[in-house]
Amino acid sequence: MSANVSVFVPADVPDEVRETYIDNFSTITRGTGRLMLFAGDQKIEHLNDDFYGDGIHPDDAEPEHLFRIASQGRIGVFATQIGLVARYGRDYPEVPYLVKLNSKTHLVKTAQKDPASPMITTVAQVVALRKQTGLKIAAVGYTIYLGSEFEAQMLTEAAQAVLEAHQHGLVTVLWIYPRGAAVKDEKDPHLIAGATGVAACLGSDFVKVNAPKKEGTASAVLLKEATLAAGRTKVVCAGGSSVDEGKFLKELYEQIHTGGCSGNATGRNIHQKSLEEAVRMCNAISAITIDGASLEDALALLKGN
Amino acid sequence: MSANVSVFVPADVPDEVRETYIDNFSTITRGTGRLMLFAGDQKIEHLNDDFYGDGIHPDDAEPEHLFRIASQGRIGVFATQIGLVARYGRDYPEVPYLVKLNSKTHLVKTAQKDPASPMITTVAQVVALRKQTGLKIAAVGYTIYLGSEFEAQMLTEAAQAVLEAHQHGLVTVLWIYPRGAAVKDEKDPHLIAGATGVAACLGSDFVKVNAPKKEGTASAVLLKEATLAAGRTKVVCAGGSSVDEGKFLKELYEQIHTGGCSGNATGRNIHQKSLEEAVRMCNAISAITIDGASLEDALALLKGN
Amino acid sequence: MSANVSVFVPADVPDEVRETYIDNFSTITRGTGRLMLFAGDQKIEHLNDDFYGDGIHPDDAEPEHLFRIASQGRIGVFATQIGLVARYGRDYPEVPYLVKLNSKTHLVKTAQKDPASPMITTVAQVVALRKQTGLKIAAVGYTIYLGSEFEAQMLTEAAQAVLEAHQHGLVTVLWIYPRGAAVKDEKDPHLIAGATGVAACLGSDFVKVNAPKKEGTASAVLLKEATLAAGRTKVVCAGGSSVDEGKFLKELYEQIHTGGCSGNATGRNIHQKSLEEAVRMCNAISAITIDGASLEDALALLKGN
Amino acid sequence: MSANVSVFVPADVPDEVRETYIDNFSTITRGTGRLMLFAGDQKIEHLNDDFYGDGIHPDDAEPEHLFRIASQGRIGVFATQIGLVARYGRDYPEVPYLVKLNSKTHLVKTAQKDPASPMITTVAQVVALRKQTGLKIAAVGYTIYLGSEFEAQMLTEAAQAVLEAHQHGLVTVLWIYPRGAAVKDEKDPHLIAGATGVAACLGSDFVKVNAPKKEGTASAVLLKEATLAAGRTKVVCAGGSSVDEGKFLKELYEQIHTGGCSGNATGRNIHQKSLEEAVRMCNAISAITIDGASLEDALALLKGN
Amino acid sequence: MSANVSVFVPADVPDEVRETYIDNFSTITRGTGRLMLFAGDQKIEHLNDDFYGDGIHPDDAEPEHLFRIASQGRIGVFATQIGLVARYGRDYPEVPYLVKLNSKTHLVKTAQKDPASPMITTVAQVVALRKQTGLKIAAVGYTIYLGSEFEAQMLTEAAQAVLEAHQHGLVTVLWIYPRGAAVKDEKDPHLIAGATGVAACLGSDFVKVNAPKKEGTASAVLLKEATLAAGRTKVVCAGGSSVDEGKFLKELYEQIHTGGCSGNATGRNIHQKSLEEAVRMCNAISAITIDGASLEDALALLKGN
Repeated sequence: MSANVSVFVPADVPDEVRETYIDNFSTITRGTGRLMLFAGDQKIEHLNDDFYGDGIHPDDAEPEHLFRIASQGRIGVFATQIGLVARYGRDYPEVPYLVKLNSKTHLVKTAQKDPASPMITTVAQVVALRKQTGLKIAAVGYTIYLGSEFEAQMLTEAAQAVLEAHQHGLVTVLWIYPRGAAVKDEKDPHLIAGATGVAACLGSDFVKVNAPKKEGTASAVLLKEATLAAGRTKVVCAGGSSVDEGKFLKELYEQIHTGGCSGNATGRNIHQKSLEEAVRMCNAISAITIDGASLEDALALLKGN
Repeated sequence: MSANVSVFVPADVPDEVRETYIDNFSTITRGTGRLMLFAGDQKIEHLNDDFYGDGIHPDDAEPEHLFRIASQGRIGVFATQIGLVARYGRDYPEVPYLVKLNSKTHLVKTAQKDPASPMITTVAQVVALRKQTGLKIAAVGYTIYLGSEFEAQMLTEAAQAVLEAHQHGLVTVLWIYPRGAAVKDEKDPHLIAGATGVAACLGSDFVKVNAPKKEGTASAVLLKEATLAAGRTKVVCAGGSSVDEGKFLKELYEQIHTGGCSGNATGRNIHQKSLEEAVRMCNAISAITIDGASLEDALALLKGN
Repeated sequence: MSANVSVFVPADVPDEVRETYIDNFSTITRGTGRLMLFAGDQKIEHLNDDFYGDGIHPDDAEPEHLFRIASQGRIGVFATQIGLVARYGRDYPEVPYLVKLNSKTHLVKTAQKDPASPMITTVAQVVALRKQTGLKIAAVGYTIYLGSEFEAQMLTEAAQAVLEAHQHGLVTVLWIYPRGAAVKDEKDPHLIAGATGVAACLGSDFVKVNAPKKEGTASAVLLKEATLAAGRTKVVCAGGSSVDEGKFLKELYEQIHTGGCSGNATGRNIHQKSLEEAVRMCNAISAITIDGASLEDALALLKGN
Repeated sequence: MSANVSVFVPADVPDEVRETYIDNFSTITRGTGRLMLFAGDQKIEHLNDDFYGDGIHPDDAEPEHLFRIASQGRIGVFATQIGLVARYGRDYPEVPYLVKLNSKTHLVKTAQKDPASPMITTVAQVVALRKQTGLKIAAVGYTIYLGSEFEAQMLTEAAQAVLEAHQHGLVTVLWIYPRGAAVKDEKDPHLIAGATGVAACLGSDFVKVNAPKKEGTASAVLLKEATLAAGRTKVVCAGGSSVDEGKFLKELYEQIHTGGCSGNATGRNIHQKSLEEAVRMCNAISAITIDGASLEDALALLKGN
Repeated sequence: MSANVSVFVPADVPDEVRETYIDNFSTITRGTGRLMLFAGDQKIEHLNDDFYGDGIHPDDAEPEHLFRIASQGRIGVFATQIGLVARYGRDYPEVPYLVKLNSKTHLVKTAQKDPASPMITTVAQVVALRKQTGLKIAAVGYTIYLGSEFEAQMLTEAAQAVLEAHQHGLVTVLWIYPRGAAVKDEKDPHLIAGATGVAACLGSDFVKVNAPKKEGTASAVLLKEATLAAGRTKVVCAGGSSVDEGKFLKELYEQIHTGGCSGNATGRNIHQKSLEEAVRMCNAISAITIDGASLEDALALLKGN
């Protein structure tokens, strides 16, 4: 895991923004090709559930907590909605941002209606904000619920978003979750591999999937099918809702070293802590993801050593 | 609560309209950052129910009553549809206007179909009318029914409206009401906090929510979660359908001083009165909202002292 | 009811078409501010039911009958679809036209599906035809079925049509009928007043509603709530399907003098007669609507005196 | 039925394409104002059912059969999809073409879902192909299923197509068929008259309807209501699925001379024959439609005399 | 089957791109007019099912396997999504590409909802990528599910795609599969012939259908109706899921020599093998399709002789 690895530039990035793309990619991967994505888009996705309540530090009640973490912790990119970037970004200009283009709440459950999450912010608006403010907006993201009856709209918008983002030198991350009445097992490793293959077909730079699960096999081993299917699209994964930090970091280590992942996307396991603890958690995660550190070294960072 | 507080300008407001935005924001908050919003958009939302019938003063039968109040009472901004602004605005040029971009009637109930309220007026049309007439059109508003099966369209249009309004220096107010088959308790404080968080993610300057309710806790205390979740987006609240004026003003006082609200949005409790009483009610509300007056001082204004 | 009353010009009419608007308004109200609208858009709305069959004069079987009446009778404006204007207008250049922008057939009943009536002709196309032909196309019209599950599309298109029409100096008439599974009583006076209030919020110059009905009160008295709620938007009404001409004219007289209406919209009660009788009916209606004539004078005109 | 009758030009045809329109109209009516339309759009509408099977000549298995007939038989215009024109037109440049703008298959029956047939080719694309190739593309066509739950989309697209076609000097034909759950009797003469009235309101030059049927009255007599209702829009009719050629020609003769039709639209009764027989059938039909020939003369042509 | 046959250029190809079209057509048919299409779009259509599992060579787990085959095997054109072209194309510039414009997953079955597959990539984006990269992007493809309740959207998008592709000199292939609640027998030869007729009406250069099946008749014989109905649109066929290579090649031979096909579209029967075997399979298929080789010669190639 050397620093400043050469950056692969997909063919839909025009020559005139090639350097912009390389800069953006290098910035959010800190020159390693590996991504530590700090996810802060849940205020729409999960409303206030992730930010207020038992076991959540009071610091998390205000959205600025996310920006403080993104600023002080060692992260690759901070993913959130354009509105929060517009209201806090100028006070945190050192943070690299990924603007999430679509979002929905969790109020309507799959049992009532298959999930749909149309684009609420366009790539053009993201590009305009970047130009207007000079903020380090380096990437855009979009979530697809594969197998939903409304899958088609999301596939279309995602495909368009990737192409348009590349036209402006922005890096892309697709979140792909199989979900809907037609999906029996959202964590099926073969289905997760289908999801990463879809991301490849859509030309995304990164794809974020949930960790696969199957009785009797370690999750990291199951990920191999998905990281192979993704081809040149890099896979990042989430440790899920695990609250034990040691277990979380161990899973992350294995996702990368065994499963072939190129990083992580972590939200609640960071921002539900106090600022100080959240920063240490970021640093521990980044050590594994970006520096190729050992689990022991990461745990030491977590403890503030 | 000092006057002429400095105005926070979000990053999606371009430099060339920065002064316009500051002017608009200062105008509708009368230099205090706090908003007294006089709501007059119910002729579509509630048809003639709010304007004619038992307990409603006959003055309210004609739409011009709203403009007379907005002109003679002390308010921050008068919210109504573009058609009424086009037909009365030139006779009331001193009134600051907020144009409500979407509206629906209450005829189709949630039991029949989840609520949807698509945009009927575009930001571009509001901007054109402002330019064409020189009227003090300072803001736009949009209502989102969170948890409706049609939530996605409203999230999209609201996100677009906020960004486009800011591009033209207009201030934004989102009305966010959880509603639909998936919503069990529209007044749940945690859900209301989710709503204000959504407004923050969409980058709105203000969000109007209904006052939360939970057995055993004062509404103003319950609001705290929501005003924290809103971050730099300011929360305004409604006293609901209370008809006792003293109780109404007390609730408003507590929403601001205990709940952390930055103002109020009041309609029926003002316009269902005679012009003279409505003007006094506006003045009493504004005393609390804008001047930081005590409840006693506000009640004195209400009685015309 | 003096002639050449000054014309109210709404603020969304730009200065450069102000004179056009005043001309159009004066033309269709014959300088009185009151509107005699001859409705000839039923060939889509009711197919051939209104034009052929028992009790209908054979003249009515051909669409040109409508143009002959509009040309020879004393009317304010003739409302019909753009296709008929394109095929007959050049032979009847003296007639002021209102182009109806949306239309549906009556085949699908409300019991099967709530009514929807999307725009089939754009304001831009009406403006182009006016420019191309020099015909006196002075107004556009649009029908909203309030309370339909598809209300939102119609509210949106109507709002857009009014603003766009005013941008080109055209006068607007909205037909608003409460209809759909959610509407229990389409003639409820309070609901009709809701409809005229909606027209005001959409900024229309005129609104056409059905006459309200309630056991024990004269229809014209019931209309007062609606004409008040309409504010500066003028209300025109229909005498319904009454076939007794005397009764029809008496109702019309009362709608104006008691109910506060500013005119009428009449179709079948005119065009189902022979040309000669239809012309006399137009003249009788116009005497009441435009000239403020007494019922007796109107009846005399009806008899050809 | 004189040749070179003067051509009525509707007012939505701009002056600069007036001559184009007159040329197109004269071409497809061969200077008579009457239309012999050879219908060859069924390869989408009926898939291969009309072209292959018992009682169908093997020549009909290939689409070029249609072009051979159109070229060698005496017709007014050949109606088909743009794709076939693009692939065969240059080899048959003498044929006047009507491009059908919308098409659907017959696979989904009305019992499953009301019919919808959105536009698949735009008028602009037809105009571009005409300009690019110099082919005699003289007209466009569109089918409306009146009474379908999706009627609105078809009414809108048809209205737009007629206006846009006229802007480019193209003649228009609307196929209007009442169909859907709401339609009890598709051949009801009163309903057919409703359909032709709709065509008039949409401003079409021609309307094609199915022949009406009612117990006890000849179809041609029943057509009178429809041809009156159509006004200046000319009605063309189909002989239906009759296979007896003499009966077919007799019906056609009566549709014109008794029913007031201005032509015919015939497909299967022509193209399911061998090329030679199909050409004779075209000539017989054209004799009646275009030349005003007697039934006997037409029958003689049919037999190759 | 001579090489360098003259290329038929449809009339919707403008003169200025005529040479581009001829080049593209000649390239993908290797100058023969016959098409060997290597299908590699299943990573969305079938997720990872075709690429990983029992009986599938491990090479197929990664998408680059497809590009290696396309580069080393003898094929006409490699069909896949734009994202894969953007990520691998520059390393395989010698491969002629067809970009598939629409794709869906197989998760939602027809029993749940009729199939829909809206366009996710536009022709304009394909043209832009070709220009930007200089890659040999020679064709576009689109899948229509005929008989689906959503057929209309697919017919529209396909029609538009063909016209627009031809405007830029790109060759078109339509995949047409009858599918949906209304379709009883997807392999019915008469229905397959309907599908190829639809492709002709849409003006496509090629149409890919599944091989028809009917008890008691060889599939290749059944294809004749379809290849006749297609007219000047060339039919390519798939050997289905047959795993016996000899049987596969025999069927292919008969589809061409008996059924009148102009080529093949083959995916799984190629890419599920190791690279070396896949290349030999391509060469064997191309021998039959492109060179008119005998079955024996093709089998010899398959065995690496």
